[in-house]
Amino acid sequence: MSVAKEFEAANANYVASFTKGDLQLPPQRKVAVVACMDARLDPARVLGLEEGDAHVIRNAGGRVSDALRSIIISQQLLGTREIVIVHHTNCGMLTFTDEGIRDKIRADLHQNVDHIAFLPFGDLEQSVRDDIKILKDSPLVLDVPVTGYLYEVETGKIVLVEESQ
Amino acid sequence: MSVAKEFEAANANYVASFTKGDLQLPPQRKVAVVACMDARLDPARVLGLEEGDAHVIRNAGGRVSDALRSIIISQQLLGTREIVIVHHTNCGMLTFTDEGIRDKIRADLHQNVDHIAFLPFGDLEQSVRDDIKILKDSPLVLDVPVTGYLYEVETGKIVLVEESQ
Repeated sequence: MSVAKEFEAANANYVASFTKGDLQLPPQRKVAVVACMDARLDPARVLGLEEGDAHVIRNAGGRVSDALRSIIISQQLLGTREIVIVHHTNCGMLTFTDEGIRDKIRADLHQNVDHIAFLPFGDLEQSVRDDIKILKDSPLVLDVPVTGYLYEVETGKIVLVEESQ
Repeated sequence: MSVAKEFEAANANYVASFTKGDLQLPPQRKVAVVACMDARLDPARVLGLEEGDAHVIRNAGGRVSDALRSIIISQQLLGTREIVIVHHTNCGMLTFTDEGIRDKIRADLHQNVDHIAFLPFGDLEQSVRDDIKILKDSPLVLDVPVTGYLYEVETGKIVLVEESQ
């Protein structure tokens, strides 16, 4: 059975107890979360989010440079006025280089992806600081509070790296 | 108080009952979910995901063309072999055009963003079909099962749009 079919079965349980059909489109807590796609990180559970609270943008590494389109839409059209970044320990982005994945794709898929920046990093805390700086420097992002955390996959805890008002 | 500080307080509750500190990096159910960032959509609750199960990639609209870097990393480095797309009713992407948001940013931020495709759409089901086709046509994406759903924010239900084996 595909995982999709398992999702359909699980969804029936969600529907059976669903009570949130009248939520509004703009996030109620006016915040956008940018987090890694990692399977061990559930931003809603980790941060105490309820349906309707926050935009949650996720990609490999939780990199803001790959979230810019979404952040602009979140701020310009849907009124969010705070950004929270969540990277995490034991991240896959620590395990490879642009050169390495490009070589793998050339060998396995016979494709040249030298034009894609895969955005790996070597230092977790620095990756959070770098992403806060990208947001603060961008003329396309409003000057809003940005807070960056490292999520510890070993403990469930978010550890503050930097906050910028 | 910033929302970030509220997140720190909520996280203490998560940490207090945390029991999942030994999960592995690769997603256990070998699936990557691509979903909209919408605040009303919680992919984990809607699909029955536990920590460790799946990569969850989210952006404005749940568009795969803006998730390609993450999908490649998910498949090439972390072994996922199925993709599930979740768009949803009452999506913000139905409410604007590239021209409209570019004009707004030119007026409000004095920036030219004609180089950014914001990826809005006019038809929900077609947006899912389009994204499945992009994945199936891409030489950078493995030929894996792709299933696309519309999540009904009014009912909590995922409705199958198309599945491609």
